[in-house]
Amino acid sequence: MSKGLVVQKFGGSSVANVERIQNVATRVVSYRKKGFDLVVVVSALGDTTDELIALADKINMNPSEREMDMLLSTGEQISVALLAMAIHKLGFEAISFTGAQGGIITDSSHTRARIIRINGDKIKEELKKGKIVIVAGFQGINLNQDITTLGRGGSDLTAVALAKELNASSCEIYTDVQGIYTTDPRIEPKARKIKAITYDEMLEMASLGAQVMQSRSIEVAKKFNVPLHVRSSFSKNPGTMIIKEVKKMEEVVVNGITLNKNEAKITLCNVPDKPGVAVKLFEELACAQVSVDMIVQNVGHIRQTDISFTVPKADSAKATKITKRVASEIGAGDVLLDNDIARVSIVGVGMKSHHGVAAGMFGVLAKNKINIEMISTSDISISCIIKKRFAETAVRALHEKFGLAK
Amino acid sequence: MSKGLVVQKFGGSSVANVERIQNVATRVVSYRKKGFDLVVVVSALGDTTDELIALADKINMNPSEREMDMLLSTGEQISVALLAMAIHKLGFEAISFTGAQGGIITDSSHTRARIIRINGDKIKEELKKGKIVIVAGFQGINLNQDITTLGRGGSDLTAVALAKELNASSCEIYTDVQGIYTTDPRIEPKARKIKAITYDEMLEMASLGAQVMQSRSIEVAKKFNVPLHVRSSFSKNPGTMIIKEVKKMEEVVVNGITLNKNEAKITLCNVPDKPGVAVKLFEELACAQVSVDMIVQNVGHIRQTDISFTVPKADSAKATKITKRVASEIGAGDVLLDNDIARVSIVGVGMKSHHGVAAGMFGVLAKNKINIEMISTSDISISCIIKKRFAETAVRALHEKFGLAK
Repeated sequence: MSKGLVVQKFGGSSVANVERIQNVATRVVSYRKKGFDLVVVVSALGDTTDELIALADKINMNPSEREMDMLLSTGEQISVALLAMAIHKLGFEAISFTGAQGGIITDSSHTRARIIRINGDKIKEELKKGKIVIVAGFQGINLNQDITTLGRGGSDLTAVALAKELNASSCEIYTDVQGIYTTDPRIEPKARKIKAITYDEMLEMASLGAQVMQSRSIEVAKKFNVPLHVRSSFSKNPGTMIIKEVKKMEEVVVNGITLNKNEAKITLCNVPDKPGVAVKLFEELACAQVSVDMIVQNVGHIRQTDISFTVPKADSAKATKITKRVASEIGAGDVLLDNDIARVSIVGVGMKSHHGVAAGMFGVLAKNKINIEMISTSDISISCIIKKRFAETAVRALHEKFGLAK
Repeated sequence: MSKGLVVQKFGGSSVANVERIQNVATRVVSYRKKGFDLVVVVSALGDTTDELIALADKINMNPSEREMDMLLSTGEQISVALLAMAIHKLGFEAISFTGAQGGIITDSSHTRARIIRINGDKIKEELKKGKIVIVAGFQGINLNQDITTLGRGGSDLTAVALAKELNASSCEIYTDVQGIYTTDPRIEPKARKIKAITYDEMLEMASLGAQVMQSRSIEVAKKFNVPLHVRSSFSKNPGTMIIKEVKKMEEVVVNGITLNKNEAKITLCNVPDKPGVAVKLFEELACAQVSVDMIVQNVGHIRQTDISFTVPKADSAKATKITKRVASEIGAGDVLLDNDIARVSIVGVGMKSHHGVAAGMFGVLAKNKINIEMISTSDISISCIIKKRFAETAVRALHEKFGLAK
């Protein structure tokens, strides 16, 4: 009898070469031997996608998105066929499916399609025959039979959506790291792998700079309450569970520290303190597709104010230009661009019910003589903009302060 | 108004790199500019298929044929997407289809599937919109939605089948040679490109060693009377038309000379001249999947005979072993294997109505002191087995004798 269905997703680095594909096959088979039904979602081999993009670039720098999907979807198709062969070699039954064959029906937004439904009949049929079903991640098909791709993090999304549709008992996301850490171990060697974290905390951490999983698949997992297990494809150790609620003997206030160095700060000085001024600026930035992140309005002198905001570094030149134009139109003062900033954030659902967390954060930074330039808070996070050169010191000090070390 | 529909097929060497893909796009667009509707069939880029096979071999030396089709079909999918991008770059509308999207429905014989029908609706729809339609060659889909491939020469078959289904006015097979030659120009530099040749002659030449097109697609073209134009993708010169009947002022007797050095001759000596002896030998060879080509039984001494036959060189060891076993069972004499043979053939529909062609062939060989070891004839061809070292001399002498030179 089946012990239930497990969906396992393996990213590109987990299937980067023949040996790794064989490792994945061995792991999948070990679950089959334990009595689980298995649906395996696979990304394209290592750098295949980048190579195909480079090839397309040589032909057309502005390729049709439909044709790009046609091209890139071959990457996962190669992976699923090879993984099926590797599982056969171990003496187990397996069958591979493209996104289309796996019933992943999407809308028609090529290169960033959204799954509209999954027709799981073919997968269920093969599972019933006792086969391990391997589905190409990242891709689907629209109602016109065109091949679509789901955009960044698309394979995770395929896995989560299949886990929901097939009512899986578990959805395992295999990656090249051991799980989610309290902070980046390259910055703080004492960083600890988190055993369990809530969807909300993970979403907050992803939006603040943690790069293990894309927000999109976490959101879908949260919506349908699909428990995720993020773990390493190179070890048997358990990784991090991402779930609805984490029960602990003693509640942890701060669960993780994130760092984002990819933003720039723009300050518009001496803005006339009149209604509609901020609206005009941020509308123009939105029109130019600049995504503004933090916004702080410092009330300074009477009838005048400074507005500071952060944007992705890649957009900072464009945003500065727009801001200068608006400044002259509304009679504001100088526009200052600062590329040397970093955002340090603390994240934890425990903050909701604990006082003094913000004060604790500010105190640590002050003690380390780190000036805070902007502050932004949410229900479960507090972020500070500081000078970039203090970033690592800040992360380590906060990690220590909130007791996250091993 | 459209001038009619042309189906164009480009093989792997025609799309081996970015520059060649751009050349193909330019050629396709030149036809569009002249007012033709276009369906373009493309093979996988250069060595892609071989590379994928090598990759599969590393994982499983005996891969599932279904998974092999899943894997190999990505090759043409890459080609069609890139060609669509290249055509877009030239400012023309184009859309790519996999075999499945193109409605190529096959049986389930993976790696050598047969087309059972074509659902051309989607292609017709896009043609109506004025788009150049690009279809992946070599592949289709069975009724269970599994991807299939058509085996060797499969892309030609896709093109011919589409030309028939869509009622194309012409089906152009682009290749890396200029067309069909009276004989291999590497052997006889005076070899001449044939302007037009019948399906039957082409089939005979293909079966006798000419390697430009596989018999399978010529058979389908013949069955549905689809005129084929075999020509070079690197030049604008017309190639060779393959059609039902060639009208000429003066009928040509011999249209081409072929040479095949890939066979070996086996002779079973002193066979008791009793019914059922030959049957036993060739049944056993058939059971072992050895394909026997020419068979000659020389009536020699009374109540004893020699039987000679040719087999592909790759099978000669196996065939010799079987023949030796049969020899001892039936009380026959020695078994002789000769790997140093060649088959020279002359082909032409004109032979049917001309006398003395065989005599002419034998005379030329005799004049050149070339001994004939076996002879075999069909309605439109005569083949002689000779010693391999005389092969090129024979080809050149026959080419001269039958007036095929430029």
